[in-house]
Amino acid sequence: MQPKRQGRPPTLENARERILDDAANLFAREGYDGTSLGDLAVSVGVTKAAIYHYFPNKKEIYEGIIVRTLDGLLREVSAATAEAKAPEDALRRFMTAHADYFEEHYNGFLAMLVGYGGMQNVVMLAEAQQLRDDYENLLRTILSDGTEAGQFRDVDVQLTSRAVLSMLNWMARWFKPGKGRRASSFAQDYCDLILGGLRA
Amino acid sequence: MQPKRQGRPPTLENARERILDDAANLFAREGYDGTSLGDLAVSVGVTKAAIYHYFPNKKEIYEGIIVRTLDGLLREVSAATAEAKAPEDALRRFMTAHADYFEEHYNGFLAMLVGYGGMQNVVMLAEAQQLRDDYENLLRTILSDGTEAGQFRDVDVQLTSRAVLSMLNWMARWFKPGKGRRASSFAQDYCDLILGGLRA
Repeated sequence: MQPKRQGRPPTLENARERILDDAANLFAREGYDGTSLGDLAVSVGVTKAAIYHYFPNKKEIYEGIIVRTLDGLLREVSAATAEAKAPEDALRRFMTAHADYFEEHYNGFLAMLVGYGGMQNVVMLAEAQQLRDDYENLLRTILSDGTEAGQFRDVDVQLTSRAVLSMLNWMARWFKPGKGRRASSFAQDYCDLILGGLRA
Repeated sequence: MQPKRQGRPPTLENARERILDDAANLFAREGYDGTSLGDLAVSVGVTKAAIYHYFPNKKEIYEGIIVRTLDGLLREVSAATAEAKAPEDALRRFMTAHADYFEEHYNGFLAMLVGYGGMQNVVMLAEAQQLRDDYENLLRTILSDGTEAGQFRDVDVQLTSRAVLSMLNWMARWFKPGKGRRASSFAQDYCDLILGGLRA
């Protein structure tokens, strides 16, 4: 049924990640309600008991996708911005790395945006909140560094951070991967707009 | 049960609107699945048969909320921008009128954002698409008028329109009515940011 997976039983190292990957794809294709843990086990190529070894129920798998998406986003965007030489460069790297992560982890990213507000597991919710706060602080620091360096105007950092994240996150409403331009190409243009402004 | 409505049977003029208003509020409070047409009839103060006189089923009430929200948004924002003297003023009026409409029709607006992609009634879907196109064209015309008048840079109108609508629509994720600042006050700040840009 899953030829590419034959002879590749999950190892302890990657089983949890493969469950989350396949669950994100199944939830995107069949819907959360339309996906059973049996479907997921077949997709991953393990028994249902193996799924239960890692997750007590479907809801925690969903919340696991959310936490892992936020964790991956923070990690990749932090790495991209760490190499920046100047605030404008850092903002551009933040925006394009965010767009790349969104495009490359599209199904998990949509699950994260949709599901974040409904998280119930208090441990995973706290983890997700911390990751989101760290992520917003990464952007706010870029903005306030730019103001301190005299390269950005003395704007409201919280509002500007929200504006940037609004443009990036709203891409989930209209951008479809693999249909022409890369998400990061739109992020480049958004970055030019927010840096240069509209006024002639 | 609904004292304020006693002695106020719906008239032909306002029954349809009252059904849509109450349904938007019930869907927001109880969820779509958690709201029955019986609950709705009680809330409006009519019989279930009266509800069926206007709508064949719950799904069409939901889609009716979407169409009416888009129609009201287009109407109010068009009226606000029609009085503008210059492109900057028009953009500011567009953004603040949008934010006001969002705040004043909060439950219907959220239903519109969530439900737009899942519309099934082809007539209402076509109507919603036309209203959305007209709304985006209103904003694009403001932007291209500004460029022609030499007041805005020669930006990509579609991308800039998307950026503006992203900032406004993402407010649905974090803004709660009645908790301090008005939505239009944030829209003012967003407008300043998009006009002036971040670069010092």
